[in-house]
Amino acid sequence: MTYPFLNRLRVIESSAFIAAPLAGLTLAQFGADVIRVDMIGGGIDYARMPRMPGGRSLYWTGLNKGKRSVAIDLRRSAGRELVQALATAPGPDAGVLLTNIGTPWLAHDVLASRRADAISCTIQGNADGSTAVDYTVNCATGYPAVTGGGSRERPVNHALPAWDIACAYQAAFAVVAAVDHRRRTGAGAQLRLALSDMAFTTLSHLGVLAEAELLDQERPSIGNHLYGAFGRDFATADGQRVMIAAISAGQWKALVAACDAAPAVAELARATGLDFADEAQRFEARDALAELLEPWFATRSQAEVAAVLDAHKVCWGPYRTVRELLATDARVSMANPVFERLHTPGIGEHLAAGAAVRAPAMAREATPPAALLGSHTDEVLHEVLGLDSSAIGRLHDAGVVAGPDADPSQRP
Amino acid sequence: MTYPFLNRLRVIESSAFIAAPLAGLTLAQFGADVIRVDMIGGGIDYARMPRMPGGRSLYWTGLNKGKRSVAIDLRRSAGRELVQALATAPGPDAGVLLTNIGTPWLAHDVLASRRADAISCTIQGNADGSTAVDYTVNCATGYPAVTGGGSRERPVNHALPAWDIACAYQAAFAVVAAVDHRRRTGAGAQLRLALSDMAFTTLSHLGVLAEAELLDQERPSIGNHLYGAFGRDFATADGQRVMIAAISAGQWKALVAACDAAPAVAELARATGLDFADEAQRFEARDALAELLEPWFATRSQAEVAAVLDAHKVCWGPYRTVRELLATDARVSMANPVFERLHTPGIGEHLAAGAAVRAPAMAREATPPAALLGSHTDEVLHEVLGLDSSAIGRLHDAGVVAGPDADPSQRP
Repeated sequence: MTYPFLNRLRVIESSAFIAAPLAGLTLAQFGADVIRVDMIGGGIDYARMPRMPGGRSLYWTGLNKGKRSVAIDLRRSAGRELVQALATAPGPDAGVLLTNIGTPWLAHDVLASRRADAISCTIQGNADGSTAVDYTVNCATGYPAVTGGGSRERPVNHALPAWDIACAYQAAFAVVAAVDHRRRTGAGAQLRLALSDMAFTTLSHLGVLAEAELLDQERPSIGNHLYGAFGRDFATADGQRVMIAAISAGQWKALVAACDAAPAVAELARATGLDFADEAQRFEARDALAELLEPWFATRSQAEVAAVLDAHKVCWGPYRTVRELLATDARVSMANPVFERLHTPGIGEHLAAGAAVRAPAMAREATPPAALLGSHTDEVLHEVLGLDSSAIGRLHDAGVVAGPDADPSQRP
Repeated sequence: MTYPFLNRLRVIESSAFIAAPLAGLTLAQFGADVIRVDMIGGGIDYARMPRMPGGRSLYWTGLNKGKRSVAIDLRRSAGRELVQALATAPGPDAGVLLTNIGTPWLAHDVLASRRADAISCTIQGNADGSTAVDYTVNCATGYPAVTGGGSRERPVNHALPAWDIACAYQAAFAVVAAVDHRRRTGAGAQLRLALSDMAFTTLSHLGVLAEAELLDQERPSIGNHLYGAFGRDFATADGQRVMIAAISAGQWKALVAACDAAPAVAELARATGLDFADEAQRFEARDALAELLEPWFATRSQAEVAAVLDAHKVCWGPYRTVRELLATDARVSMANPVFERLHTPGIGEHLAAGAAVRAPAMAREATPPAALLGSHTDEVLHEVLGLDSSAIGRLHDAGVVAGPDADPSQRP
């Protein structure tokens, strides 16, 4: 569902994959009029897995709901000229390009020559223009050597495209900050955001780089333990697993009380000389503490465990597969107002999320589902560029633009 | 380094751990005047690991650079009154609270009763107010069952606090969108963002929820393979590892050419009847394709591999530990303009990152290092609340506020 925060700010998105489309979705969910421009027949991400039996991508339609779709032959100069015109059309709530396509014809100076206060946000792999994706950046962050019991020799990749996601929200932030700045000063902005910079700056913010530089040490590879305090997964009697976190002193106290472990924990403190009120000392004794707590979990069903942990306000969560999550967790259902049901063309009806942010005083509108490619070609060309129906007809005849009938899912 | 985009927008941050502080840092890096308010002596995150030998936290100082610090006794009503006054002080570029502390005295209606157009952004664990942290949310996303060869029975946690990071940037975005909205309409905004909503909405955007609902299937657990195309880690002759991604058709073509693998790949296509120009069919044959490419990597040093892959513009990256990254990668060095060197009190001099976003036309200022707690107590009380030195003196005498001498690192 979408909020009216951004006053229909018009954003032209020429993009592929995750980071730029998710940035566009984020803007759309806050009320931007995001117009995604795609190659006629779809760009390189249009058929990304998972796909419906009919071929339409659940990945693409997930990332491109809430937007309008224009299909243009981006290889031809007449098509490129249309994209430039869309991105630089006048109006205080227009003149914004979001892209991850580092092509000269979408370069900032090209846009600025048509609209001096243009805002462009270009997401890159590396800042030098070379290609990188989440996986080929993450491998350099050090995390694979400390994930899942991995090591330098046997690194473990994350499955979540975490850097793409971070990049998306950072880009959406930068665009809105630049729009606000333009509203006050009249100045446009060229914004560039490299996935590798996103990852490596985050390492600085989390203290990871300073740790390596100043303490000359690497994070230990500690499996499912959390770093720097106490937390780990535990198996229950009925074959389920739960994750426990005791980061604050209060969380630790709650956990010890819930598991009836005060005497045993005190004994361990005596034996080791450690003070478990200090998170770093809990971390130091993590294996012994986990071993001490294991039997409590192993002799109870997940339901019993849940009841006791909740009663003590322990910070914990169950492990679930995605189907289990959907089947059992009210947080992922229509009982949660951030979700709605969409009917996406070529896909069917399904649960879908609006913005994660709740703004209780502001009404949300239903999210338009991801459109067939080119569904809004004609209305956008008319509304934004003022083209009349005969001009639009000529562009269709010349194959420069296309409507939804050219969507691959509409092929016989 | 900080950009002047946000015109010294004053944000009062009362926070702990990662999501809210990183949101505040993001705002600060774009030019907000972020004033972090902490309990005298430090909040529950002030000593988070890793720590310097003297006790100061590299985690806390990484997340709280670029901000001013005010130390207040938050347990006392006089202290709480000061925080409310700071968060609701007048001015078009003020009146913003960022917090993850769900306490009644920081509730939105309390602020709105003092300043009708107040903006508050409250980050929560779960939307019902119950506690959750990155780890106790991630376990429910399904990712641990498909990370690092994990399973439902042996889940693998990620080590990167990915949901905290996503939450931070999403929150910074929401704050700036609300500020822009207030500038146009005069209306304030109550924003709430739950970590669990952040995770579960992302599952929707990536198509993961729709896949489970409509196709009734779970993602496969595929180790270091990437999902939906071809990509995996490979060992080189000198004991190094590289990650290869061939998501687009162009990336695949480049990889096959670089590895001199065209005949063998064509033979495999014939034998299997698969068309490797289609990413889904590359994914289907991922094991056979990886096996076929392994010897090429295994018989070359990483340097040789790198030279050939770069010459063919293959999308790849080396695995590194953090120390290796710092020692060898120019992307994490003063050669990269997003980095600078800071001298942080109690820490020393070290590399630190500004915003990942590059805005070539806009000058950046040096980031102020993370301050000792309370370093800006007096100046903020004077500047924002107009208190004179005798009024400030009385607050010190009463123990309601403190200066940097009360920072734990200054204790003898």
